[in-house]
Amino acid sequence: MTYCVAIEVDEGLVFAADTRTNASLDDVRVHRKLHVFQYPGNAAFVLMAAGNLATTQLLVSRLHRDAAEDRSPSLPRMRHLFEAAAYVGELLVDCQVKGRPSGRGQDGINTQATLILGGQIAGERPGIYMIYPLGNAIAASPETPYLQIGESKYGKPILDRIVRPTTGLDDAARTAVVSLDSTIRSNLSVGLPLDLALIRRDALRISGELRLSGDSPLYADIHHNWARRLEQAVASLPRFPWEGARNPGDDAAD
Amino acid sequence: MTYCVAIEVDEGLVFAADTRTNASLDDVRVHRKLHVFQYPGNAAFVLMAAGNLATTQLLVSRLHRDAAEDRSPSLPRMRHLFEAAAYVGELLVDCQVKGRPSGRGQDGINTQATLILGGQIAGERPGIYMIYPLGNAIAASPETPYLQIGESKYGKPILDRIVRPTTGLDDAARTAVVSLDSTIRSNLSVGLPLDLALIRRDALRISGELRLSGDSPLYADIHHNWARRLEQAVASLPRFPWEGARNPGDDAAD
Repeated sequence: MTYCVAIEVDEGLVFAADTRTNASLDDVRVHRKLHVFQYPGNAAFVLMAAGNLATTQLLVSRLHRDAAEDRSPSLPRMRHLFEAAAYVGELLVDCQVKGRPSGRGQDGINTQATLILGGQIAGERPGIYMIYPLGNAIAASPETPYLQIGESKYGKPILDRIVRPTTGLDDAARTAVVSLDSTIRSNLSVGLPLDLALIRRDALRISGELRLSGDSPLYADIHHNWARRLEQAVASLPRFPWEGARNPGDDAAD
Repeated sequence: MTYCVAIEVDEGLVFAADTRTNASLDDVRVHRKLHVFQYPGNAAFVLMAAGNLATTQLLVSRLHRDAAEDRSPSLPRMRHLFEAAAYVGELLVDCQVKGRPSGRGQDGINTQATLILGGQIAGERPGIYMIYPLGNAIAASPETPYLQIGESKYGKPILDRIVRPTTGLDDAARTAVVSLDSTIRSNLSVGLPLDLALIRRDALRISGELRLSGDSPLYADIHHNWARRLEQAVASLPRFPWEGARNPGDDAAD
């Protein structure tokens, strides 16, 4: 399993992904699922993947090769983000087929993957797309300015509550980290460290990139102090009819 | 679908359930899923149900009848909570079978239900049990002092972060309401109003019971202000290396 989330706010894009892959419960490894493709001044992309690791590694290798050899199509030659999503979608379908013996998958192995591709191309606004195993794609919208792949349920409420197009880019990134931490606590197959990347609007390069382990200050603070902040928020909600009035001098957690 | 949660803290028990049932997306109704059985001074129980409504309504009717006619077994005659869970489990299995033509369910209708039974019997400590369709049951533990049935993923992170045995009973109830609200936002088949019941330790009666609709002050406050409280909590997390130091005079959402 995997959990990746991309957030699109007015200030730019946030990408966050865990790094745990498992073939079964006793074959657990760390693999990068967040991949950066930047052509400074021209375009910057981040690709995140959930699903068959052989498929997604092949896909990433081909994307880098196509760019390095200046093939057409390739990511640096894209003029529109939706065309980049279609190009990656076509490659994805091809990589899924290549992973299957005689293209039919009769051995029960699922070679499918689901992707999030986001970024900005010079002359366009930034955007994020979810690319399905069939190769088609959907974009995020102002009403739902985020996309998730993998184990998405545990980390969704915090996104729904906080993320709006007007949310600051760094606060959106902190929200993504909380969303990942909520998922890591609840699903064994989603695990640390986590990768984080930011693309600030019109920067046309990666504006920030981090690998967070359990002892990163941000991550340790979430683990140690986030519950206390939530407790204070819960304690500040209105009282039930059977409780006395709230005393101004009361401890928040009375 | 359904979402019910029970929380066991040192001060007592909290029960919360939504009220939406649906046969399909266009057959949505309101039905109570939280049922109170109290014998003041003697015992108090709350039963919550997810699954086939005919099964759980039959079960509840039989529990009330057995108690009213002073049958043995019946809830008021139970001396131990684990025996009450076993008795309800046996009735559940019987009600599931009764709901199936010739006991085999060949028409594809699923008559199963999953229950949470909690309460306190005089002379014992309070407790909560999850009762499976097979009739067997598990209790909550101090490490995981809550049980969920139905659509449990969206509402789990807030419980994991906040609920400890030392959490106050009313704060645990507020946490349950937030957990339900998170689920209602994300799953159409979980809906308002929601039912809430509290059993304070050694009260041997229901200590508080409420139906919360969207315009209840507590619920309206969660809807309107909870996101703001979370935003402040997110903004107070440590900064990323690429951000400047936090200015003490900064707005929390800068």
